[in-house]
Amino acid sequence: MHVVITGGAGFIGKKLASALLARGALETASGRQAIDRLTLFDVTQAEGMPDDDRVHAMAGNITDLAEVHKAIRDDVDGVFHLAAIVSANAEEDFDLGMRVNVEGTRNVLEACRALPRPARLVFASSVAVYGGDMPDVLDDGTILTPQTSYGAQKAIGELLLNDYSRKGFVDGRALRLPTIVVRPGRPNRAASTFASSIIREPLAGQEAICPVGRDAAMYILSPRRVVDALIRAFELPADALGMTRMLTLPGITVSIGEMVDALEEVAGERVAARVRWEPDPMIQKIVAGWPTAFDARRARAMGFEADRDFAEIIRAHIEDELGGIVS
Amino acid sequence: MHVVITGGAGFIGKKLASALLARGALETASGRQAIDRLTLFDVTQAEGMPDDDRVHAMAGNITDLAEVHKAIRDDVDGVFHLAAIVSANAEEDFDLGMRVNVEGTRNVLEACRALPRPARLVFASSVAVYGGDMPDVLDDGTILTPQTSYGAQKAIGELLLNDYSRKGFVDGRALRLPTIVVRPGRPNRAASTFASSIIREPLAGQEAICPVGRDAAMYILSPRRVVDALIRAFELPADALGMTRMLTLPGITVSIGEMVDALEEVAGERVAARVRWEPDPMIQKIVAGWPTAFDARRARAMGFEADRDFAEIIRAHIEDELGGIVS
Repeated sequence: MHVVITGGAGFIGKKLASALLARGALETASGRQAIDRLTLFDVTQAEGMPDDDRVHAMAGNITDLAEVHKAIRDDVDGVFHLAAIVSANAEEDFDLGMRVNVEGTRNVLEACRALPRPARLVFASSVAVYGGDMPDVLDDGTILTPQTSYGAQKAIGELLLNDYSRKGFVDGRALRLPTIVVRPGRPNRAASTFASSIIREPLAGQEAICPVGRDAAMYILSPRRVVDALIRAFELPADALGMTRMLTLPGITVSIGEMVDALEEVAGERVAARVRWEPDPMIQKIVAGWPTAFDARRARAMGFEADRDFAEIIRAHIEDELGGIVS
Repeated sequence: MHVVITGGAGFIGKKLASALLARGALETASGRQAIDRLTLFDVTQAEGMPDDDRVHAMAGNITDLAEVHKAIRDDVDGVFHLAAIVSANAEEDFDLGMRVNVEGTRNVLEACRALPRPARLVFASSVAVYGGDMPDVLDDGTILTPQTSYGAQKAIGELLLNDYSRKGFVDGRALRLPTIVVRPGRPNRAASTFASSIIREPLAGQEAICPVGRDAAMYILSPRRVVDALIRAFELPADALGMTRMLTLPGITVSIGEMVDALEEVAGERVAARVRWEPDPMIQKIVAGWPTAFDARRARAMGFEADRDFAEIIRAHIEDELGGIVS
């Protein structure tokens, strides 16, 4: 089978690619199929991928339907649609967010619709679809009143995916992802980027600024778990999802104080002391508007799992990204 | 002030236009303003409008942004966006529905965004945004899991309107309309069209086929009330709506049996006998999927009102459309 990952040069895209290559096959509607070809579609050519004949990096513009058709060509059986403009960037540049997050998603759906047989499509949505006045604990029955353009654009993507699936154009599944921590690499333009920085930078021997107080809480999932979840979502039978293809993933709710305490527990006082507390009222306000507690029993019943605790997330980061070595 | 009605050649558009001309002014953010110019934008030139210097009919394609800009030009202060592809038509022709209901709505929002000062925009959404497994009584906190392309497209329009409003590009308000009964004129391509036919045709001396049983129920609003509601929505202060610009209108829940009984009460046995019961399983299934009971207390608190009963709706139709005369 031929699988396409949009956003394939991003960090989740590359981790997903490695996991798919190691796994070698995916369950589909017609049984288990070997992955013969894996296309990593992104705005830039994916770099640093394992030397593997199955992998093909392709640079292209997701807002151009013709280019999306070139990636999602007739032999494609499955698509992971991860490409997106992240939250702070979509808020700053409304038109760019609309183009990539709405029109780009529509292009992926249209390309799938044109396939000779309906493909499975996993769409990375976000808990940012929630917002505004919310109950203390949210679930899949909570209404969506997003208060960011990113959240609104992801909610539109979900509605499109659901309707394209209902019409039989594609067999879609949308996962509402918690904030992914610890992201490797450099800070990005998501408002949540500090949550990874305050763990990643101290572990690498650098200072990091924490713009929110110890009490601020976040709903979190690790890179390892998100890759597992994307694959699990792909392999779910279509009727497991019922009338709605949207699913909020289980995560853990952690305060920033607990995160830094866990850093001290795992890596020692010297490392945790590299976090500098410099509250930024704007970031504090954004973070305070995020939902922090979900009852994800629907996803749990389908086998999706959260991390056990934040220390486990830090240890996995040290293993996966630092070769087990803390600076 | 200059007001634009998209879908201005449709029956609600024309009734709204007449009501606005009679009223002569609208409350706006900067006080009460006289209506100097009223543009009726539609795919065909609006016909049968009163001879009034303020009225300008304009034919144009809502899926073409340049044409929408011509209607929503720099002096525009208010827009009523009613243009849409109706339910059964949007289900049959998915691409047409996407173009008009999604891209057309986006064009209206973009044209408003380009105005020198933010306009008020009233968007006709629909209770079709609800669907699937629903509670017995719905309210503004019920999640949207539309099971038709029309419903999904209206839900996308709402998300866009809400985000454009949050960004300050437009001052939008979306009304989720119940099924409008009695529609004048000819049957249209909405699956609900029979609900008007079984009243309108018998009153005009013709037989009408009822494709559902007496027990089927619908959530209904009259043309008079919908016009009142559109104007009330326009005049609401922006802060009345809070974090979400969407509002489900109060309506009345009536069974088809009660509708025909009311027809007999108002117009006599001879007229009611013109309804022929010929159940159509496909229509029955669609109608059974529609929500029938809403708790619209949020809209009621803002002064929106439902009809008193179905007999009142029939009497209003006889007055407004038949000059008081039943055939």
